[in-house]
Amino acid sequence: MRAADVIEAKRRGETHSRAVLGGFLGGYLAGQVPDYQVAAWLMAVCFQGLSTQETTDLTLLMAGSGDVLDLSRLPHTVDKHSTGGVGDKTSLVLAPLLAACGATVAKMSGRGLGHTGGTVDKLESIPGFQARLSEAAFYAQAERIGVVVTGQSKDLAPADGLLYALRDATATVASPPLIAASIMSKKLAGGAQHIVLDVKVGGGAFMKTPDEAEVLARAMMAIGAGAGRDVRALLSRMSEPLGWAVGNALEVTEAVRCLQGDGPDDLVALSLSLAETGLAAAGLGADRTKLEEVLSSGRAYEKLEAWIAAQGGDVGALGRLETAPEQHLFRAERGGFVAELEALAFGQAVKVLGGGRERKGDTIDPGVGVVLHAKVGAEVAAGEPLLTLYHRGRGFESALELVRGAVVITDARTEPPPLILKTLSP
Amino acid sequence: MRAADVIEAKRRGETHSRAVLGGFLGGYLAGQVPDYQVAAWLMAVCFQGLSTQETTDLTLLMAGSGDVLDLSRLPHTVDKHSTGGVGDKTSLVLAPLLAACGATVAKMSGRGLGHTGGTVDKLESIPGFQARLSEAAFYAQAERIGVVVTGQSKDLAPADGLLYALRDATATVASPPLIAASIMSKKLAGGAQHIVLDVKVGGGAFMKTPDEAEVLARAMMAIGAGAGRDVRALLSRMSEPLGWAVGNALEVTEAVRCLQGDGPDDLVALSLSLAETGLAAAGLGADRTKLEEVLSSGRAYEKLEAWIAAQGGDVGALGRLETAPEQHLFRAERGGFVAELEALAFGQAVKVLGGGRERKGDTIDPGVGVVLHAKVGAEVAAGEPLLTLYHRGRGFESALELVRGAVVITDARTEPPPLILKTLSP
Repeated sequence: MRAADVIEAKRRGETHSRAVLGGFLGGYLAGQVPDYQVAAWLMAVCFQGLSTQETTDLTLLMAGSGDVLDLSRLPHTVDKHSTGGVGDKTSLVLAPLLAACGATVAKMSGRGLGHTGGTVDKLESIPGFQARLSEAAFYAQAERIGVVVTGQSKDLAPADGLLYALRDATATVASPPLIAASIMSKKLAGGAQHIVLDVKVGGGAFMKTPDEAEVLARAMMAIGAGAGRDVRALLSRMSEPLGWAVGNALEVTEAVRCLQGDGPDDLVALSLSLAETGLAAAGLGADRTKLEEVLSSGRAYEKLEAWIAAQGGDVGALGRLETAPEQHLFRAERGGFVAELEALAFGQAVKVLGGGRERKGDTIDPGVGVVLHAKVGAEVAAGEPLLTLYHRGRGFESALELVRGAVVITDARTEPPPLILKTLSP
Repeated sequence: MRAADVIEAKRRGETHSRAVLGGFLGGYLAGQVPDYQVAAWLMAVCFQGLSTQETTDLTLLMAGSGDVLDLSRLPHTVDKHSTGGVGDKTSLVLAPLLAACGATVAKMSGRGLGHTGGTVDKLESIPGFQARLSEAAFYAQAERIGVVVTGQSKDLAPADGLLYALRDATATVASPPLIAASIMSKKLAGGAQHIVLDVKVGGGAFMKTPDEAEVLARAMMAIGAGAGRDVRALLSRMSEPLGWAVGNALEVTEAVRCLQGDGPDDLVALSLSLAETGLAAAGLGADRTKLEEVLSSGRAYEKLEAWIAAQGGDVGALGRLETAPEQHLFRAERGGFVAELEALAFGQAVKVLGGGRERKGDTIDPGVGVVLHAKVGAEVAAGEPLLTLYHRGRGFESALELVRGAVVITDARTEPPPLILKTLSP
């Protein structure tokens, strides 16, 4: 089938066979189909969608385009993916919690871009932490401790990177099947048998409504089913930042406190729900009470220490990570109830302070960030501290502007919407 | 506005300002916006359309991208454009008919491609005919005789050629505003003040239904209005070939006979309707009776001879143009009424015989073709001749196959649908 005929078929809303899709995108990856033809096809997909089978075929094609991690010798492998949130340090809590319950979390994680921080970026705010391990060391640590998280040294799903760059340049990012295929191609190449998806919903997330988020979640679960993986999903709210802290070192500190039994309610609740879902998927069914006990007893924290130490991190520094020296207390301009803390603006504020990347390869400042002192629903008096900005001067005025625009205080109290909107099982 | 934002706006169904559209496509023509971004935009246009203003802006941008003919010194300039038919030799009849009534027909015409023959290709089947004239000779002949038709020596609307190639490769041809802009950009650059469009409807045409055709026609008329030209349109049926003959020399012969008062009914009727519309647009309002008289009196034929002679053609050969030596009589396989003569198949048959181009630059054989002996609605006996194939062996079996599949004979008589479906005035 000629490339133009493939595009034409999609424009008309027809469904591609695996052979046709493979020929077209395989031809693209081999440099035989030019990017303008793929660009037109991507736009047609934005309007006509992809069937579950097409999405699965596309994902498997991308997943198989580079290295694939083989975790099959490791017991109960669980991977968690979040579609991007602000202040989301859940991975740092979840990984040791899962490992303390007998699961294996062995992942190569991407760097953060834009307003979302990456887990590896957060871990690197710990002095000595090594995000680069040899393949042998990666597997050995996974086997011995049950947790290992490194930067992406392997070339996982390079086709996804190629397609993503084209989608970004052609305004074809916002298509649920393409988003699902992009995420799942990296998850499948990452090798875990059980995958838990935290699909964010709200102003701070890509998916603005629960319905959109559920469409995306179900698309990813269907791909998992087609690829022989157990994929489950939560829909969780992302309108205000998760927890109190936004910024790499500040978030690690919050995760550490959480593992020491002193975490913010929303972070604790989300971590426990994700752990419950992941363990159920892995056949390690742990009930909520047992999980709470693993957290409060310090067993999960011990796993964190073992993990960080194994990757060269200074465990002694965990409670006192270096933050930026300048601190600015931002106070309520009026009394009332906090009605909104627009997550996206906090993510952007931390980025302009130097804590996030504008472009791949930018170095980031782990010490900058924001710590909230009140969350949505709290009553505040005029002049009461709402949050602290940790900065080094750079980008401070812009960050302050962003933060000012992100806070809404009203006379009537806003009830914060529920954190977990839905749990989806296969 | 960044190119990706322009694409995003169109994907969402927004309308571009002239500045935005000019920046985006101007950037493309200047080599600053890559073809993959334009490809994605074109596909978004297929789904979201373009407003009348956007379509006009796009057309003017393309029309102004190269040379523009200045016909302003010539009186009553009329140009006719057909959206592509099979056996359509109307231009050869219309041009001298219009000129005999005081209008000027001065055009640079493209070559035929695919199943549609070009007027210049047809003219070149006349021995000696020169399709290349100097600019001075072009204008002088227009002034002296009122008719001149040459190949496209000027670079008229090169942006259209560039965009068309991209549309062809990305399955984004079938968009009414893009088709309208493409056609009208060449018409505007062609310089005539009055434009008559013959929009074909039916199986042998790009537009399959009268509604689709009217949308296209009205889009082109709106562009004309926005560009200060008088554009009128006919919708005419294109299900069976027009007239009896398909093939370059055979069509010229049929046009000559038509101008000598012996043309097939449909060709005569369409030529008269187009002439009436064109003359009305040019303020030379001729009624049907007068036009019939110009045709039957031989005045239009005299104009044809003057025109052909002026471009070096052998006028004495007009009645006896060379055709391919092999002739195959195709007979009715059963008795009954001719219900269908699928136009597209006849166009393709002539192409495989060597009478049409597969690719630009292919040489064509002017002598091959098909002459029908019965049209839709005729009663035929089993074994009665239906048509003659003129060929030189090459492609004969394929052509026969195509022709056989194109003929449908039924027991009940099919009333041929009306030829002129609608006339649209501004």
